[in-house]
Amino acid sequence: MRSMYFIIALILFQTHLPDGFSQANDSLLIRRIYTEALSKPVAYHNLDYLCNKIGGRLCGSSQAEKAVQWTQKVLNGMGLDTVYLQPVMVGHWERGEKETGRVVSVKAGNHNLNICAIGGSVPTPAQGLSAGIVEVKNFEDLKILGREKIEGNVVFFNREADPTPIYTFNSYGGSVDQRARGAMHAARYGAVAVIVRSATPAHDNYPHTGNQHYADSVKAIPAFCVSTNDADSLSEWLKSDPKLNVFLQASCILYPDTISYNVIGEIRGSVHPEEIIAVGGHLDSWDIGQGAHDDGAGVVQTIEVLRLFKALNFRPKHTIRVVAFMDEEYGQRGAKVYADESKRLAETGKQKHIAAIEADRGGSSPQGFSIDASDEEMKIVSSWKELFKPYEIWFFEKGGSGVDIRELKSQGALLIALVTDSQRYFDYHHSANDTFDKVNVRELELGAAAMAGLVSLIDRTW
Amino acid sequence: MRSMYFIIALILFQTHLPDGFSQANDSLLIRRIYTEALSKPVAYHNLDYLCNKIGGRLCGSSQAEKAVQWTQKVLNGMGLDTVYLQPVMVGHWERGEKETGRVVSVKAGNHNLNICAIGGSVPTPAQGLSAGIVEVKNFEDLKILGREKIEGNVVFFNREADPTPIYTFNSYGGSVDQRARGAMHAARYGAVAVIVRSATPAHDNYPHTGNQHYADSVKAIPAFCVSTNDADSLSEWLKSDPKLNVFLQASCILYPDTISYNVIGEIRGSVHPEEIIAVGGHLDSWDIGQGAHDDGAGVVQTIEVLRLFKALNFRPKHTIRVVAFMDEEYGQRGAKVYADESKRLAETGKQKHIAAIEADRGGSSPQGFSIDASDEEMKIVSSWKELFKPYEIWFFEKGGSGVDIRELKSQGALLIALVTDSQRYFDYHHSANDTFDKVNVRELELGAAAMAGLVSLIDRTW
Repeated sequence: MRSMYFIIALILFQTHLPDGFSQANDSLLIRRIYTEALSKPVAYHNLDYLCNKIGGRLCGSSQAEKAVQWTQKVLNGMGLDTVYLQPVMVGHWERGEKETGRVVSVKAGNHNLNICAIGGSVPTPAQGLSAGIVEVKNFEDLKILGREKIEGNVVFFNREADPTPIYTFNSYGGSVDQRARGAMHAARYGAVAVIVRSATPAHDNYPHTGNQHYADSVKAIPAFCVSTNDADSLSEWLKSDPKLNVFLQASCILYPDTISYNVIGEIRGSVHPEEIIAVGGHLDSWDIGQGAHDDGAGVVQTIEVLRLFKALNFRPKHTIRVVAFMDEEYGQRGAKVYADESKRLAETGKQKHIAAIEADRGGSSPQGFSIDASDEEMKIVSSWKELFKPYEIWFFEKGGSGVDIRELKSQGALLIALVTDSQRYFDYHHSANDTFDKVNVRELELGAAAMAGLVSLIDRTW
Repeated sequence: MRSMYFIIALILFQTHLPDGFSQANDSLLIRRIYTEALSKPVAYHNLDYLCNKIGGRLCGSSQAEKAVQWTQKVLNGMGLDTVYLQPVMVGHWERGEKETGRVVSVKAGNHNLNICAIGGSVPTPAQGLSAGIVEVKNFEDLKILGREKIEGNVVFFNREADPTPIYTFNSYGGSVDQRARGAMHAARYGAVAVIVRSATPAHDNYPHTGNQHYADSVKAIPAFCVSTNDADSLSEWLKSDPKLNVFLQASCILYPDTISYNVIGEIRGSVHPEEIIAVGGHLDSWDIGQGAHDDGAGVVQTIEVLRLFKALNFRPKHTIRVVAFMDEEYGQRGAKVYADESKRLAETGKQKHIAAIEADRGGSSPQGFSIDASDEEMKIVSSWKELFKPYEIWFFEKGGSGVDIRELKSQGALLIALVTDSQRYFDYHHSANDTFDKVNVRELELGAAAMAGLVSLIDRTW
């Protein structure tokens, strides 16, 4: 009898889970994952360091370099089987010291604007530029106004982000074209610069930056984003004085491309070491905040997945890999290098991604997973819903994954994005407001635990 | 043909919904509710006023009186059919001017403590009191230590709130006994005062107050709560100097009971005006914060339910009533008066509650509803799940409702609590940290819209 108890105890408490392990034990493992994450919030302390000791870390910057070194050090301290850097050539743009926007008007008064250069913007002339303003809502308006009304002026894109979508990424998606391609389109009509309403449904005083695209065929003109509150004010001032002038100055500098790195760590699979389940976020961030929600959170959460497995002595069958991607914000070259290299290894049969999870939607409460998968795979993943219900994880829907992992689809990998509560995300996104204090320790750790739970189930099932 | 289009248009856009109205039109109405709430965040602006212009409003205080007047004015401005005050006699306790806690120790050093009196505490002697400290984890520890070790000392209850429950109210519930009954139990062993670790899983510098109960049979001793960070420090200091002294001072005053009010407003039912669907939160709050999440949010959200119906010209069959309850925090006498009065009306057949929804779990993202109902009723309410899915409302479970409405069960009313994301709630709860800036406009309005949607479905179905 005693040996039977021993065997039962062994089954209940063993940490290397064999195939066909029961739902009850999945449930037990997931509970242990959550208990560890909520009791020892290591991800949160890591985020504190990344945000408060390193700060904003645009690719190519010295902070990005520090973040690479720090991430490697953290992974080295975790007792992983492999930790390495994957070199990536990245762009290196800096906004420089001067960044000014000022309305000058006898009728409407003089006002400083909360603006900042959009990522990759060319500088203004060193002494700044002064011009009139033409307000538009979209690219169609440019066509209607024509070169006659636009040439020599600053185009002010002021279409509001629609507040009514429930998932705020849809609100963002419906307004971000102004930031991403506004300068390019306005330049075709002879605009000297653009000011773009920040792509957020929030009403605040922060300019929210981001990337943009110039076209080779048109002149690159300086591009600024302005806070939504100041966009509203500017529109009012323009009504009282349509001929008001704006002074703009930005001393952006584009340096030569430079070397940076994706940072990678692994727990080697006990049965299929050549089969990879990757989890990752992006290590770079915009320069004007601390990159706490975007995407320090995703980086520390995906590192936490591996920490939780080590802490619980969970030995996966497949290799579990964390990737801290470089350069998601500026050029997405880290994702490209990672995809190209893993495609090469897949073609030679050496390695293959069976799944990848991206965490890049902020560190708020996790809701579930957006899953890029076949109907058959969806059926399997959806069958795990009940296991996650006690953890307030309810969203299991087909959908996109993320820009850092989507190219892995060619290997047949199951691709997943961690979906989090989006309501506050664009209060922070790409602004000076994206700081550590906006992240809640429990919400952050719950996201890490949800991913760890999911990875454990994929590992057992695939 | 044209008249047919007209009829179809009439069916699609009419706002007074008849019985048997289709799921498609429920869906349309709910979409309109959400669009209105997210486009015109009136609840949020109301909360701004309540928090920033009136502030903390403990029952019996002049601020509570101001809040009553303001709420009545807001309701009067909404074009409701009825607005009135329901008198409630309430207790009137104030913490007074002096509130000090200081550790005095040669070995451990002198340290000020972040403390505040627990609601209803008796004062210390005017000149304060000094005593040694005995640390315990629970009431059982008191028994073990006995009068010999406790008499003449301050008892320090320092059991941590368990961080591992996912729903933080369970964490709170497991630790709040120390605050609610600590002074009563410690006094039985001759303690001169108690210091209680704040009932929150958060690690912060805020003392989180709340109510407590003295027993007639034992001496009422002064009771303080201390921030969780200082509780950790105090425990450390006690280890280095078990004989350290603490100086405590509180000048709490218990005034005579005074008159206050529940504030009530109604849209009269077009078919069954005598049948009430009530929605409500509590207008009073603790004094040391602004009562933003607890429960300014619930008050402005439930007012918003009626505003949304008016804005959309939705004419309910049943009377929709908002109740801003007085005195939830201190003595729950507003709930008692409301329940007694409505029971009396129900017994005379004049009025009957068919449903009541309480919003008192903070203004964070709504997740769904905790429902105190029969199996048959649960089946009906659960059948609405799909309608709420696009709005990230997924939780429909049997459970408790809330202290302000639970007595309405005797009328056979369907009782419901709005369930919100609980992760941050106890960062704010009953502390100086419960301020307007901690509430997100979208999260708040989504909660109001979720309740309005639910009320519209109950109104159509019941």
